[in-house]
Amino acid sequence: MRIPRQVSKFGRIVRHASLVLWFGLPANGTFAAEQTVEQWSKYEVTLKGPTNGNPFLGARFAAKFTQGYDSIEVPGFYDGDGNYRVRFMPEKQGPWKYETASSAPELNGRTGEFTVAKPSPSNHGPVRVAHTFHFAYADGTPYKQLGTTCYVWTHQPEALQEQTLKTLATSPFNKIRFCVFPKRYSWNTNEPPMYPFAGTPRSFDAARFNPKFFQHFERRILDLQKLGIEADVILFHPYDEGHWGFDRLPPDADDRYLRYVVARLAAFRNVWWSLANEWDFMKAKQESDFVRFGGIVSRDDPYYHLLSIHNGQKLFNHTLPWLTHASIQNGSAVEDAGRAVLYRDAYRKPIVFDEVKYEGDIPKRWGNISAEELVFRFWNGTIAGTYVGHGETYLSPDDILWWSKGGVLKGQSPARLAFLKKVLDDAPAEGIEPIDKWQNPEYCGKPSEYYLVYLGKQTPTSWEFKLPKPPQGKGSPPAGGMKFTAEVLDTWNMTVTPVLGTFTIVKMTDYFHADKDGRSIPLPGKPYLAIRIKRVRE
Amino acid sequence: MRIPRQVSKFGRIVRHASLVLWFGLPANGTFAAEQTVEQWSKYEVTLKGPTNGNPFLGARFAAKFTQGYDSIEVPGFYDGDGNYRVRFMPEKQGPWKYETASSAPELNGRTGEFTVAKPSPSNHGPVRVAHTFHFAYADGTPYKQLGTTCYVWTHQPEALQEQTLKTLATSPFNKIRFCVFPKRYSWNTNEPPMYPFAGTPRSFDAARFNPKFFQHFERRILDLQKLGIEADVILFHPYDEGHWGFDRLPPDADDRYLRYVVARLAAFRNVWWSLANEWDFMKAKQESDFVRFGGIVSRDDPYYHLLSIHNGQKLFNHTLPWLTHASIQNGSAVEDAGRAVLYRDAYRKPIVFDEVKYEGDIPKRWGNISAEELVFRFWNGTIAGTYVGHGETYLSPDDILWWSKGGVLKGQSPARLAFLKKVLDDAPAEGIEPIDKWQNPEYCGKPSEYYLVYLGKQTPTSWEFKLPKPPQGKGSPPAGGMKFTAEVLDTWNMTVTPVLGTFTIVKMTDYFHADKDGRSIPLPGKPYLAIRIKRVRE
Repeated sequence: MRIPRQVSKFGRIVRHASLVLWFGLPANGTFAAEQTVEQWSKYEVTLKGPTNGNPFLGARFAAKFTQGYDSIEVPGFYDGDGNYRVRFMPEKQGPWKYETASSAPELNGRTGEFTVAKPSPSNHGPVRVAHTFHFAYADGTPYKQLGTTCYVWTHQPEALQEQTLKTLATSPFNKIRFCVFPKRYSWNTNEPPMYPFAGTPRSFDAARFNPKFFQHFERRILDLQKLGIEADVILFHPYDEGHWGFDRLPPDADDRYLRYVVARLAAFRNVWWSLANEWDFMKAKQESDFVRFGGIVSRDDPYYHLLSIHNGQKLFNHTLPWLTHASIQNGSAVEDAGRAVLYRDAYRKPIVFDEVKYEGDIPKRWGNISAEELVFRFWNGTIAGTYVGHGETYLSPDDILWWSKGGVLKGQSPARLAFLKKVLDDAPAEGIEPIDKWQNPEYCGKPSEYYLVYLGKQTPTSWEFKLPKPPQGKGSPPAGGMKFTAEVLDTWNMTVTPVLGTFTIVKMTDYFHADKDGRSIPLPGKPYLAIRIKRVRE
Repeated sequence: MRIPRQVSKFGRIVRHASLVLWFGLPANGTFAAEQTVEQWSKYEVTLKGPTNGNPFLGARFAAKFTQGYDSIEVPGFYDGDGNYRVRFMPEKQGPWKYETASSAPELNGRTGEFTVAKPSPSNHGPVRVAHTFHFAYADGTPYKQLGTTCYVWTHQPEALQEQTLKTLATSPFNKIRFCVFPKRYSWNTNEPPMYPFAGTPRSFDAARFNPKFFQHFERRILDLQKLGIEADVILFHPYDEGHWGFDRLPPDADDRYLRYVVARLAAFRNVWWSLANEWDFMKAKQESDFVRFGGIVSRDDPYYHLLSIHNGQKLFNHTLPWLTHASIQNGSAVEDAGRAVLYRDAYRKPIVFDEVKYEGDIPKRWGNISAEELVFRFWNGTIAGTYVGHGETYLSPDDILWWSKGGVLKGQSPARLAFLKKVLDDAPAEGIEPIDKWQNPEYCGKPSEYYLVYLGKQTPTSWEFKLPKPPQGKGSPPAGGMKFTAEVLDTWNMTVTPVLGTFTIVKMTDYFHADKDGRSIPLPGKPYLAIRIKRVRE
C-alpha cells in the first residue's frame, strides 16, 4: 500500500510542476550563504525581497537544489522584516548547487553552492518506515518509538517550556506530540504568549502569519532535536471551539497555513506530521478536508516526513498511500496484544497507539488509569509489534498537567517505560514481530533467535518452556537441538533475573517445541512478568 | 468507502461500453420467451447460434434490457448444444423489453417483451449492505447472516448432496460458502463427478467450459434459494496444488472463467461472490491478480451482488470500494468482542467472520474447538456488531466432514445457533450495534431501546442493572425515569427467563445510568449468559 521510496524520489522531480514553470526567468547572480552543513541538517538561503502589500500572499519564492541528476524543488516562505527564506534538508553528502526562482526579480535566479558533510554522531537523519511495521532513522539506526504528549507545551510561559525540556532530557521518550495552534479546554484557559497569525483574539488576519510565533516554535523543534526527540507536529485540532477560530478557518486559509508550515518546518529532520488530533471531532471539517490536507502536506514536503492523523471515535482510512503509519487513539486495543495486532493486518503499516488513556487522576475515564495499567498497555502494544504513546494527567492546583502543558512528570510509569526502552534497545534491530499472531499473542520477537513472552496480569508461579512455530514464510521455525537461555523480567519492579542453565528444545506437537527435559521456569507469582529468551550457539 | 447504490445504477448504463459498440447491428426480429417472471427471479432468453469452432471463444452475445429510462446490458454465454443464453434478474416490476446483440447474425437484434410481477412471499430479493455494517434483502427485510461452510458439497455423489440439502433445510443457516472448483486436501481425495472445463484430469481445455457441470451447479444454487439460503460462491481456492491445475490457470483463462461464471450465475438472486478462499495461500497468484478479478466480477455483474474475498494469514485490503463487505478468517478476533469490533472501525463495512475455527475433533488446531467455544465466538461477533460463520470437522470413517462435503451435522453448536437466530430475529431490524465500543464491549443493541449484554465465560451470580451512555451522535442516551424489562438468556441451555418487575433508571455517573433502587439481576453462576433488556413505555 505504501508508495515505495524509489517512486517517491521520482515524484520529487515532477511534483512541483507549478514551480518549474517559473524557473525559466533570467538569472540574478550568485548569493553567498553558509558553505558547509552536515547531512540531514537545515541549509537555509535568505534573501531580501518585497515588503509592500501582504508579502505572505505576494511574491512566490522557491529554490531548486541540485546534485548531479538529483534535483529537488523546495518552496520558500516569507519570514517578516523583508526576509525570504528557503530551507533545504540535504539527504546526500557532497557538493550541492541551488538556484532560486520567484515572481519578484530580486528573489529570482540567485545561485549558490555548498557542501554537505558527514552527519555528526548524534544525527541519524529523519525517521522512516522500516520492515513494514517498524521505524528506522535514515542511516539505518533502529528507532523504537516511545512517545509522549504535551499538546501545547510551546504555548506556555518560557520557564515552563524550559522545565519541560529539562524533564524530557532525562525521560525515556523519543517522540513528543504537540500542536501548532493553542488549546482551549478544561485546565487550559490561559492565553498563549503568541499566535500563529497576525492580530489579536477576535481580529486575527488569517492571511498574515506571525513570523515570531513560528521562529519560536522552530527553536523548540531544534531543542527537541538536540535531545534526540522527534517532534510530531499536530496541524489541526478541535480544542478551540471558536474561541480563536483556528478550528474553523476557510479552506483557502487552511491550505495556505499548511503550505506555510511545511515550507518552514520540513527541513527539520525530527519533524513528523500529524494532520489532526481527533480529526472526527472537528465539527467544521469533513473527512474530505483531511484528504486534501494530506495531499498538500505530502506533496509540499520534499522529504516525505512521517505523516499520519489521529482519531477521536472514527478511525481515518489508514490504507491511503500517503499516510506513512497509523496514529490511533484507542486504549482498549492495547488492553490485549490480540487486539492490538489486528490493526497491523488491516493497515500493513506501523501502528502507533498515540493515545491509550493517561496515567492520572482527573475525573474523566480517559485520564485516570493507573501507572500499572499504562505500562501494561505499552507492553501489550510492544508484543503485538506496535508502538504506544504515554500521557499523564495528574490534577495540579496550578492546572499544569503534563498531557497538555508539560512541566514535570509525577507518575510512576516513565521509569518503567525507561526499563521497556532498554528491553527494546536489546531486541532485534528490525523490530519485534508477533510470532504466531492469532494463536499465541503473548509471544513476540524473531523466530528461533529471540523471544519475549509477556504474561500481563497473570500471576503464574512457573512457565513451561515452549516455543511456537511461526506461520510459513514468517521466519525460521524452531528445530530440535536448538539451545536457548532465558531471563525473567519483572516489568514493574524493573528487574532482570537470569534463569540458570540453557534450554535445549525438542518437538512436542505440530505447533510447539519445548525443553527436552520438560523444564519450566519458576516465577514469583506476580503480575507484569515477561520471559526473555535468546538463542545460544556453541 | 462504498460506492453508493445510486452511483452504481448510473454505472450500469456506461460500464458495458464494449457491448454498446455492437448494439448498432441490424435487428433480427422478435423472439418469444416466457412472458412473466417475478421480480428478482431469473428471466432467460435462449437462442440457437453457431456451433462451429470453439463457441466459448467465438460469437459475442449480450442483451440490453430496458424499462423506461432504465437500461441494463447483460452479458450472455454459450451453454452447449448450440444454445446461447442471456439471463436477467429484473429489479423493477412492470413491462420490460430486450434486444440482443451479437457478432453472429442469428443472435443479433432479437427483441422481446415480458412482464415482471410482484415477488412471491418468500422472495425478498438479493441481500444488500444496509446501515453500513449490516445486511438487508432488497425489499428491506432484515437479513442476519448466520453462515456455514461445505466447501465442495456440490462435487460429491448426488445422494450426499441431497442429504446436505435436507440437513440445511432444518438448520439455522441462511448462507453457505462453497467452491466452484473441486478440492484436493486431507479427507478430500475423491475425484468429483464433473469438472468445470472440458477434458479430463491432465488434459483439461481451459478454453472450453463444461455446460453440464454448470447446469448442475446452478440447480444447487436454486435448491438453496428455495431453502432461503444465500450461496456464497468461492471463485478460486488453493486446495488443488496442481492436481487439476485450476489454481494456476493463465491470466486469460482465469478472466474468461470469471466472465463465464458471472454471465451464468449473476441472475440468481441468492448468489454472493467470494473471489477466493485463503487468497494469500494461492502460490501462483499475486494480490494484483485478485484486484483484477474483483474488477471483472464487479463490472460484469449487473446486479452488484455482495462481493468479498477470504484470507489465510494476510487480510485483503477491504477498504477497496468494490468489496461490499469484509470476509475474514480469524478465530482469535471473535474470542473477544473488543477484538471483533476493531475491524468495523478499519473497514467501515459489514464484517463477516467466515472462518473462526471449526467445531470438531481433527488433529488440526483450526478444526477442533468445542461447540461451546464456537457458540461463544458467534456471540462475541454478534455483540460486536459483526457476523460469524459456522463450520464442523468431526472425523468420520467415510471421510465425510461437514466442513467440506456436507452430509449431516453431528455437532452441538447448530441448535445453539438456532437459538441465537431467534434472538437476532427479535433484535432491532437495522442490526445490533456496539453501544460503547471501546469501553464496554459486552453491551450492544440500540441505545435506550434494546440491549443485549453478553457475559461470555464469566460465571456471575448477579448482574448490576446499568446502562452505558453511547458516544455523541450514536443514538439516544439513557435518561432518568426510563423503564426497562429484562430477561436472562442462557445461550448454551437455550432458555429465556424473564426477570420480575421493571427497572427504572437514574443517572449514576457521567457514563452510566443504573436502576434507581440499585437492583441487580440474580444469575445462575454459569458461563454463556446474556441479559436482554427492552424499553417499556407505559
